[in-house]
Amino acid sequence: MFKKIATRLKDWFPAQEVHAHCDGPCGVYDPASARITAEAVLSMTKKILALEVPASGDTAAMVAYNNTLSRYIAIKEEQAQKTKDDLLILWTDYFKPVHLEKYPDLHDTFWKAAKLCSACKVEVSQQHAEELMAAVEKIHNMFWATKDRNVAWYKAS
Amino acid sequence: MFKKIATRLKDWFPAQEVHAHCDGPCGVYDPASARITAEAVLSMTKKILALEVPASGDTAAMVAYNNTLSRYIAIKEEQAQKTKDDLLILWTDYFKPVHLEKYPDLHDTFWKAAKLCSACKVEVSQQHAEELMAAVEKIHNMFWATKDRNVAWYKAS
Amino acid sequence: MFKKIATRLKDWFPAQEVHAHCDGPCGVYDPASARITAEAVLSMTKKILALEVPASGDTAAMVAYNNTLSRYIAIKEEQAQKTKDDLLILWTDYFKPVHLEKYPDLHDTFWKAAKLCSACKVEVSQQHAEELMAAVEKIHNMFWATKDRNVAWYKAS
Amino acid sequence: MFKKIATRLKDWFPAQEVHAHCDGPCGVYDPASARITAEAVLSMTKKILALEVPASGDTAAMVAYNNTLSRYIAIKEEQAQKTKDDLLILWTDYFKPVHLEKYPDLHDTFWKAAKLCSACKVEVSQQHAEELMAAVEKIHNMFWATKDRNVAWYKAS
Amino acid sequence: MFKKIATRLKDWFPAQEVHAHCDGPCGVYDPASARITAEAVLSMTKKILALEVPASGDTAAMVAYNNTLSRYIAIKEEQAQKTKDDLLILWTDYFKPVHLEKYPDLHDTFWKAAKLCSACKVEVSQQHAEELMAAVEKIHNMFWATKDRNVAWYKAS
Amino acid sequence: MFKKIATRLKDWFPAQEVHAHCDGPCGVYDPASARITAEAVLSMTKKILALEVPASGDTAAMVAYNNTLSRYIAIKEEQAQKTKDDLLILWTDYFKPVHLEKYPDLHDTFWKAAKLCSACKVEVSQQHAEELMAAVEKIHNMFWATKDRNVAWYKAS
Repeated sequence: MFKKIATRLKDWFPAQEVHAHCDGPCGVYDPASARITAEAVLSMTKKILALEVPASGDTAAMVAYNNTLSRYIAIKEEQAQKTKDDLLILWTDYFKPVHLEKYPDLHDTFWKAAKLCSACKVEVSQQHAEELMAAVEKIHNMFWATKDRNVAWYKAS
Repeated sequence: MFKKIATRLKDWFPAQEVHAHCDGPCGVYDPASARITAEAVLSMTKKILALEVPASGDTAAMVAYNNTLSRYIAIKEEQAQKTKDDLLILWTDYFKPVHLEKYPDLHDTFWKAAKLCSACKVEVSQQHAEELMAAVEKIHNMFWATKDRNVAWYKAS
Repeated sequence: MFKKIATRLKDWFPAQEVHAHCDGPCGVYDPASARITAEAVLSMTKKILALEVPASGDTAAMVAYNNTLSRYIAIKEEQAQKTKDDLLILWTDYFKPVHLEKYPDLHDTFWKAAKLCSACKVEVSQQHAEELMAAVEKIHNMFWATKDRNVAWYKAS
Repeated sequence: MFKKIATRLKDWFPAQEVHAHCDGPCGVYDPASARITAEAVLSMTKKILALEVPASGDTAAMVAYNNTLSRYIAIKEEQAQKTKDDLLILWTDYFKPVHLEKYPDLHDTFWKAAKLCSACKVEVSQQHAEELMAAVEKIHNMFWATKDRNVAWYKAS
Repeated sequence: MFKKIATRLKDWFPAQEVHAHCDGPCGVYDPASARITAEAVLSMTKKILALEVPASGDTAAMVAYNNTLSRYIAIKEEQAQKTKDDLLILWTDYFKPVHLEKYPDLHDTFWKAAKLCSACKVEVSQQHAEELMAAVEKIHNMFWATKDRNVAWYKAS
Repeated sequence: MFKKIATRLKDWFPAQEVHAHCDGPCGVYDPASARITAEAVLSMTKKILALEVPASGDTAAMVAYNNTLSRYIAIKEEQAQKTKDDLLILWTDYFKPVHLEKYPDLHDTFWKAAKLCSACKVEVSQQHAEELMAAVEKIHNMFWATKDRNVAWYKAS
């Protein structure tokens, strides 16, 4: 088993053995970044769905409504993108071939989570925003398990 | 007391009473963002200080050293800036005049913390990076106290 | 008095005395950056309020209207954020404890100005955009007074 | 002729002769970047024009429509800006006075192309988006001609 | 077979069937973006390795050398990040479960390519930069094969 | 003369006559943005040239020196890029064909100024940084002349 991993490592990162750098910010990975922005995606999605359209004659209210709706959509977009970026940093930089041995669904987990980020941008879907939160929680658990640490999952909102 | 706060609120935000918006992403503030990036600042600072200069004749090692040093400095810069940005979002958007009544040193706390972020960019100082971590922890405690929540302080690294 | 300042400086920046760096770009602070972007916030706010909603049957005009409204809101958002960033750079990097002695309302001035930037994002309020311009002008005067220079306040628009 | 060029070069870049650097990423200029983003501008423009407004009573459909419209406008804005940036890098960094001798309309070509990028942001105009594609194709041909290479023009969409 | 794909699709994207959006910029994916930036990574890597250290007494040459080296490293970092971003957009937004059926090594291909981007940042390795180019070429071929189009692979440099 | 301008306008912007938009933020152009960042380029260039290399045995001083040098180069790079961006916004969005009639060297002025921005990145040249300041001052004068306003040129540093 160890031999198999070692062979894969050699196959993948031939020059890595000699000068074994890990990426610059290693040691400070934390899925909490992705959790915070995923919460913002869910919050914005709910707020968009709850916004009440003003009566058609009220111009001032209509301008305020459009400003708020436009900003909420833009914030949802930005926060979903940040969630995607932070998750993919974990996938590409933190997780190594040894983890893949232990979590054979590693790639699928991240692929689905990343696709959920895109879905939350494209749609205004509370269901997908909640599925994204669940995906981040799953990754939180996987991540801390690889470090043998028990970090409690909590939400800021 | 209530009257005093109300007067200050009127004084500061005369039009705010009528259309009481809060900022777009409200409800999902979390000092954990600033904590993660401040940890990266401390980590990079330590790694810069621990980097060994290669022997002067070894060109390949010198190029690798310069690449690593240059990247560590750039990552420290970026993470210190993100810490500053995230702290200032709390100061300008989350904290309200009512909190200032309760925490008279609110402004000074954030001013010093922001100045520490700049100091961590300008210098390679482990002492200042640790003081920044302490400042973020103080803000973490202040923040969750205003929400009457008990969120444990932990470090990812 | 000098002693009091010196004590505060020591209290705040214990290591600063030895290697007295100021931040990288020092010497080129200028509130004109914040003034230009605050003008853009005011300009966009006025334009949004002046936009005429096309007749309901005119699809082409409606698309053009939505494109313009959406862009104006996004530009207002971006320029308000830049104003906030530029003002906070002055507060955190230019202004020092000695200035606080001279301007005891320094913190409040910047807190209110930063909160006005956020208000100009959240709302479409000409009143708040004009208050932001006034806040920037106040900071312009404070800033140049600390340098004993008389720089005229002007507007580009 | 050579002398004239040499004189202009000396006039413009007096210190350039001694330490003849070109800009950092030289050697990897390719108008394909601008072509891809210009295609996205055209695609978004068409999609905006093709979006069907839902029936006025259908709130869920209206929210989805607003989300999509808002995102399409933002993507069009971003891609037009990237097109402009990439074209201007060619104009300011790749093209040299010797090219101006050969293409006397170099400046006008880029000025018009850059103005078309802005027009594609300000308007929802399929005509201008197609003119932008034509402008990028013209620049593609000019660019590869200066390198004596025959690179086929193609579209991704 | 079709049934298996359909079941996977339902399993993954339960709500997707009803409102089948694809992501905003669809239709204009092109691996040429990643190819251009990967070429820049290779070019910068070669230039860094070829830079000659000036004689130790020549201060002006040393300053020029440091400026050039620092910029080359920063450009390499930026271009490797852009390559990574562009590749991951293909992986998360363009490639769908149907493609995974056809290319079972899809995930591994992108994981390795993304890890090569990080390796090109962490190291100054011509071998890894060339492997990154090969990985991008492999993805170029996979991508255009899914579209049944024959787009020639070329390099700008 | 008027006819000639009108013909050129028609030639260039055939569709522009009908729906005469100007770009979003119009009315708030001000070359002061470019002046502030160009000052920062000059300031950083001078500081880089004035930095003293510490004695070879002093490791702590060497780390501080490398941190400062690396940051100064990065700030110079960023500020030169911002100067370029701000100048090119004036060229592509503010200046119109009517101005070209009045200032036949409009294109050359901006081309040289943009090339100076790149030169200030590539080199550590006080001469080029000062030429950039002169180019910005020339543009300042041209710009305000087109508005028939007399705005004083000043420097923040």
